Amino acid sequence: MSDETAEASPAPPVTAKGMPTLAAAYGATSAESGLVSLTVARRVPKEDDVEIEIDFCGLCHSDVHATRGEWGAQSYPLVPGHEIVGRVRRVGSAVDDFVPGDLVGVGCLVDSCRECDSCLEGLEQYCERGNVGTYGVKDSRNGGAITQGGYSTSVVVDRRFVLRVPEGLDPAAAAPLLCAGITTYSPLRYFDVEEGDVVGVVGLGGLGHMAVKIAKAMGAQVVVFTTSDAKVEAAIELGADDVVLSKDPEAMEAANRTIDVIIDTVAAPHDLNPYFRTLRLNGALFQLGLPPTDMPPVSPGALIRRRLSYAGSLIGGIAETQEMLDFCAEHGVVSEVEVVTARQLNEAYDRMVAGDVKYRFVLDTKTLQPPSEKADI
Amino acid sequence: MSDETAEASPAPPVTAKGMPTLAAAYGATSAESGLVSLTVARRVPKEDDVEIEIDFCGLCHSDVHATRGEWGAQSYPLVPGHEIVGRVRRVGSAVDDFVPGDLVGVGCLVDSCRECDSCLEGLEQYCERGNVGTYGVKDSRNGGAITQGGYSTSVVVDRRFVLRVPEGLDPAAAAPLLCAGITTYSPLRYFDVEEGDVVGVVGLGGLGHMAVKIAKAMGAQVVVFTTSDAKVEAAIELGADDVVLSKDPEAMEAANRTIDVIIDTVAAPHDLNPYFRTLRLNGALFQLGLPPTDMPPVSPGALIRRRLSYAGSLIGGIAETQEMLDFCAEHGVVSEVEVVTARQLNEAYDRMVAGDVKYRFVLDTKTLQPPSEKADI
Repeated sequence: MSDETAEASPAPPVTAKGMPTLAAAYGATSAESGLVSLTVARRVPKEDDVEIEIDFCGLCHSDVHATRGEWGAQSYPLVPGHEIVGRVRRVGSAVDDFVPGDLVGVGCLVDSCRECDSCLEGLEQYCERGNVGTYGVKDSRNGGAITQGGYSTSVVVDRRFVLRVPEGLDPAAAAPLLCAGITTYSPLRYFDVEEGDVVGVVGLGGLGHMAVKIAKAMGAQVVVFTTSDAKVEAAIELGADDVVLSKDPEAMEAANRTIDVIIDTVAAPHDLNPYFRTLRLNGALFQLGLPPTDMPPVSPGALIRRRLSYAGSLIGGIAETQEMLDFCAEHGVVSEVEVVTARQLNEAYDRMVAGDVKYRFVLDTKTLQPPSEKADI
Repeated sequence: MSDETAEASPAPPVTAKGMPTLAAAYGATSAESGLVSLTVARRVPKEDDVEIEIDFCGLCHSDVHATRGEWGAQSYPLVPGHEIVGRVRRVGSAVDDFVPGDLVGVGCLVDSCRECDSCLEGLEQYCERGNVGTYGVKDSRNGGAITQGGYSTSVVVDRRFVLRVPEGLDPAAAAPLLCAGITTYSPLRYFDVEEGDVVGVVGLGGLGHMAVKIAKAMGAQVVVFTTSDAKVEAAIELGADDVVLSKDPEAMEAANRTIDVIIDTVAAPHDLNPYFRTLRLNGALFQLGLPPTDMPPVSPGALIRRRLSYAGSLIGGIAETQEMLDFCAEHGVVSEVEVVTARQLNEAYDRMVAGDVKYRFVLDTKTLQPPSEKADI
């Protein structure tokens, strides 16, 4: 069957109760396979489960690392995707907060221990026993199966980890909010950014462009730091008030002591000390990306002389993700996206690695081939 | 005149109004001179000034670095000392909050711009134009003279930078509160330490032992990290609830995720990553010492996975230093001190460098030789 036919195919039929649903998907069968068409068996909804017919799924750089095995041993086949938006198809008997047809989302998490201090505080991303990621993670509450993500026509998720997507948001453009959005929203909220604060954003990719939009919506002034002349205009178009070329020592000197908090989205090793100099008293730099090798050392003197913090932050909890979605709906914030078909996925991955995307690819799951009669996973 | 005679000498007489007071002092005349007897001219009190007859001055490791020129170019002669306790001798015409006889203190600061945001917030230590340190710094409000510190029989300081030392505190043991005390109190307060929190203290020297006592007085549980078996008992004697030998991987592993905030007082380069692993969600490590060379890099992953902060902190503002003194009086907290005479100063410096002090040397200024008839500075 050709991809042309696939693009016109309807959503797969709901199977009889008691039988897993066979869902169309795209994923990797090995670190070298690239993404290929797969069929994944989604469990029959348990009493607390929500079965979601996926419409769109964002492409996150983590997906590239995971499918290519760049983050260590990986279980294959693997369906990536944790920026999921779709509609509820059916719900388990104990679910009374979602009904079929609701527009919903799933982000990076589909479960956690629900008992540790972090979970009880609604910070499931920091679950002390390890959260259950949306793909590639052993799901002990579901027989130890490896979770399979959102490059697929459907998914089944416990209601506690299903988000309500406000109808006012464009579903494709809202998908990246589930990872890129919450990852930047959470540290901005944790730092208590408010009107008049000055927020610096380092790097203008998927995360960076969301940081600009969200910080602006919070009432902050936004300064983008970039190494690339080409991104100056793009940053202004996104709403940045100012752009500093970080390779220009004079521009960096002029930015000395002007910023309250910096959201650093660059995942390659880079020297943070020039950025600390741009921070005001009590300022903080949040690093969100995890470089594959050591960062250059941070100078403790810079931290000491202005009581600065070098901090980290990981996505956000479920309650905060819902808060972020409502905030984005209220302020009309969505991601800038380029919608791609299933057969464009491998090319999209190459373009992401090359930095050639403004600013997030989103898979239209209607373009997936129909599932085969037998599950691959 | 021999030192024997010097130890019995009275405080120098107050000179006539309008003439600088010649004060006895000990200081360095070059990076290699060691400390020698000097005479320093203290200015006639201006209307906002307080002239203090110094009783005791603590010996801080910074004093060693500064007098030995280890922190870059230094103006000589230099009288160190910024942990000053004494009594008011006379006051300027506009001073109505201090009267002769009051027990007072002076810490690391004797002035600041008084106009920048930091100063207006009472955070004079972070003065954006540079604070005026108690010794070795150009004092623009006083003719650009280089400030001279507290290894001396008297000092003249603007009332805004004079602290009130509660009479209940032993003056010698209170002196180190003015630097070691406030340097550890301030980050503990900034982190909002309260009853039941777990505070880690890395290094058990002048700063570390104050951190233990102050954190205990705040109601925290205190865990001392040390590389030295010999310090285990000493830490418990100071009030620590637990001691972890940081070179023992099993002990460090057992401390995983048990600490809320760490006060790191070690000024030599050391790997912080094992300490980050002992922090709970939202924890912070405050580094207070400034190593002469780069620290090993901090792993961003450790910060990201638990939303940790690597932070710095510099002494404290004047209002907070007063708050700390009042807190210490209320809780009976003072430094463990060994009082030394002027002629023991050089030996005391060598012992500080060797780590042979429990936990702070304090100079008894009555043991200084009388001033000569002509000022050296």
